[in-house]
Amino acid sequence: MSSQFSITDAAKACKQASLRIAQLTNAEKNSVLEDIAKAIIAHSDAILDENQKDIDAGKVKGLSNAMLDRLLLTPERIADISDAIIDITRLDDPTGSISNLALRPNGIQVGKMRIPLGVIAMIYEARPNVTAEAAALCLKSGNGVVLRGGSEAIHSNKAIARCIGLALKQHSINQEAVLIVPDTSRAVINELLTLRQSIDLVIPRGGEGLINFVTDNSAIPVIQHFKGVCHLFVDKFANLDKALNLLINGKTQKPSACNAIETLIVHQDIAEQFLPIVAASFAEKGVKVHACDKSLPFFQGAELATDQDYDAEYLDDEIAIKVVNSYESAIDHINQFSSDHTEVIVTQDTSRAQQFVRRINSSVVMVNASSRFSDGGQLGLGAEIGISTSRLHAYGPMGLEALTTEKFVVFGDGHTR
Amino acid sequence: MSSQFSITDAAKACKQASLRIAQLTNAEKNSVLEDIAKAIIAHSDAILDENQKDIDAGKVKGLSNAMLDRLLLTPERIADISDAIIDITRLDDPTGSISNLALRPNGIQVGKMRIPLGVIAMIYEARPNVTAEAAALCLKSGNGVVLRGGSEAIHSNKAIARCIGLALKQHSINQEAVLIVPDTSRAVINELLTLRQSIDLVIPRGGEGLINFVTDNSAIPVIQHFKGVCHLFVDKFANLDKALNLLINGKTQKPSACNAIETLIVHQDIAEQFLPIVAASFAEKGVKVHACDKSLPFFQGAELATDQDYDAEYLDDEIAIKVVNSYESAIDHINQFSSDHTEVIVTQDTSRAQQFVRRINSSVVMVNASSRFSDGGQLGLGAEIGISTSRLHAYGPMGLEALTTEKFVVFGDGHTR
Repeated sequence: MSSQFSITDAAKACKQASLRIAQLTNAEKNSVLEDIAKAIIAHSDAILDENQKDIDAGKVKGLSNAMLDRLLLTPERIADISDAIIDITRLDDPTGSISNLALRPNGIQVGKMRIPLGVIAMIYEARPNVTAEAAALCLKSGNGVVLRGGSEAIHSNKAIARCIGLALKQHSINQEAVLIVPDTSRAVINELLTLRQSIDLVIPRGGEGLINFVTDNSAIPVIQHFKGVCHLFVDKFANLDKALNLLINGKTQKPSACNAIETLIVHQDIAEQFLPIVAASFAEKGVKVHACDKSLPFFQGAELATDQDYDAEYLDDEIAIKVVNSYESAIDHINQFSSDHTEVIVTQDTSRAQQFVRRINSSVVMVNASSRFSDGGQLGLGAEIGISTSRLHAYGPMGLEALTTEKFVVFGDGHTR
Repeated sequence: MSSQFSITDAAKACKQASLRIAQLTNAEKNSVLEDIAKAIIAHSDAILDENQKDIDAGKVKGLSNAMLDRLLLTPERIADISDAIIDITRLDDPTGSISNLALRPNGIQVGKMRIPLGVIAMIYEARPNVTAEAAALCLKSGNGVVLRGGSEAIHSNKAIARCIGLALKQHSINQEAVLIVPDTSRAVINELLTLRQSIDLVIPRGGEGLINFVTDNSAIPVIQHFKGVCHLFVDKFANLDKALNLLINGKTQKPSACNAIETLIVHQDIAEQFLPIVAASFAEKGVKVHACDKSLPFFQGAELATDQDYDAEYLDDEIAIKVVNSYESAIDHINQFSSDHTEVIVTQDTSRAQQFVRRINSSVVMVNASSRFSDGGQLGLGAEIGISTSRLHAYGPMGLEALTTEKFVVFGDGHTR
């Protein structure tokens, strides 16, 4: 390929190829995915060699150890990637069935059929496993896919792309159905975001800067995942044993996850009972506390919480605490600082539980359950292509169905209006 | 109001007010709508006076008679607007119910609850009835609404807004929940399109220029309705009586509608039988024909069709005709020229009908039924806020449900991960 790469031409070819993908049966799509999984194992050595180039370049660039670890592939990790693709073959095909076929008073039968979106573009950073998984999820849901990974993983991504291309070729499917963008410049993103004739959806995965940039500059619909400032509200009617378990699980099981608890809200009527237990547990686990004036005395060495703290996604052993004087104040605090990710109430009172579920409109609202369940796999979606914290099209963890839409189907027998 | 209007501040206030709207029960929302309907009747005279100002200004501006007619209100038309609001009270509330509450292997119960989107902005042209109907549909689905109508109807829109404001006040609801933008400059649209913290969805209704402008410049999700280039494919296994009825109904019942037929595709095996009948009927009805080389000899005075014709939304007694040599060619032609609105096959063959429904992914796909049924009311949506020809969030005619989304709800009993 000596000629200049054009994202406009490549995306057009991907759109054309996606028409074929949309017509494959579930068995055909699974067969393609199985062959991709096999090709990745068969070419492990080549993938590892290319990954080494990325790792070497990353060291020269001075990437952090955490970044290098995310970039690194090993034989085990390659096997995991291959297994994840096989897992996707076991999911139900979301497309093709017709629902709610109803006879209308005008005599026609009207139903809806679920269909692929068309072409989905993913813009993401240095995780080569995303390349394979996103391709598999998009193919399984009948879509073409444009994958624009970061420069850090470009050799690994291209090596995985070659495996995908081989499998597509085996099935006589145009390889452009899975387009790995070889150009890692910012300019290619700018151009990509104008291509609304060829690309139906953009999913950026990365920091807030990337997501804001894509949102502000895209003529194509964007699914956003800004951040997770998840709240745990311990109501005055809470069972405090359950509350402590949910707090410790939510905050400390995996603090780096977007579904970790970042703010604890405590009803003042149980604050004196509950906060000392929390303080002992946080001291033991080494959780740093930013406390409101009412809770500050309970936590040795804590700092006074500011609005910045209530807005913060710590992603670490660190938490903001707020004592509220009423149920209403808890709702108000959450509505003010919500990131529309996940909020939890701990209460034994059914009315207050029911009200919480009705009044908090974050994408996942829980009663007496850990925020850590806010995940596609845990919620029953099978696999997750991302989480949406904006309300259009999909809201919350996104599975295969979020990569589809519904068209109307109408059956008549010569009916006219 | 002597102070400067700020769309940023007004939209923020609308967002705040929308939290209250989202919490109203169906009975409360219906009561508000009934009072809006009453207020519009009670203030008919004032609305007619203000409408006269718009009509006078329109005449000075030299608006076409068609435009002036769309702008004109009469006592009957005001009664229709009021009745349409009452009709909306009779629709089911799309929000609040929880569906598919399933017990997961991890012990938690997971379901989805339908909720309002938040704030919806409509940008539209000179039809004062849209002001009242859009406000009613958004309120009924629990949303706040920003209405930015054109300058031609500004006096009428403000008069209707005062009626809506009176009804909201009666129910102690902040009047900013229904925001009629008093500024009709293009600059206010530019600013509005950046307000993604306050506005969740933009629906432009108007010409292709407006829709392209909004799509290319909006940081907020946009629902697009570009155009309707609807195809009628008469297969070789068609019943020709039904085919003629569907063609005449689709093309001539209301040529100005977006669901009118713009292109007729005929299988060559029945072309010699069918086209003379079509030609006779079109001659009688005065339909102008742009025909392909194979069909041209059948139509006296017809012009040779170009790709521009196959791409045209005539919205008039005018049609493009194409004879195809196979079923495949018909599918290819539709996929190439589709506007993703509505396509119809006429056939008695079940396999070919089934394939058509599977392979054509326009928003409405029909078998042996008139394209004129492609309308929210006819398809059973109750009312229609618009039609989407893009696949994200909503596709095809949009009813109340398209103004909502779903959040996850999770119930546990202290479950942790």
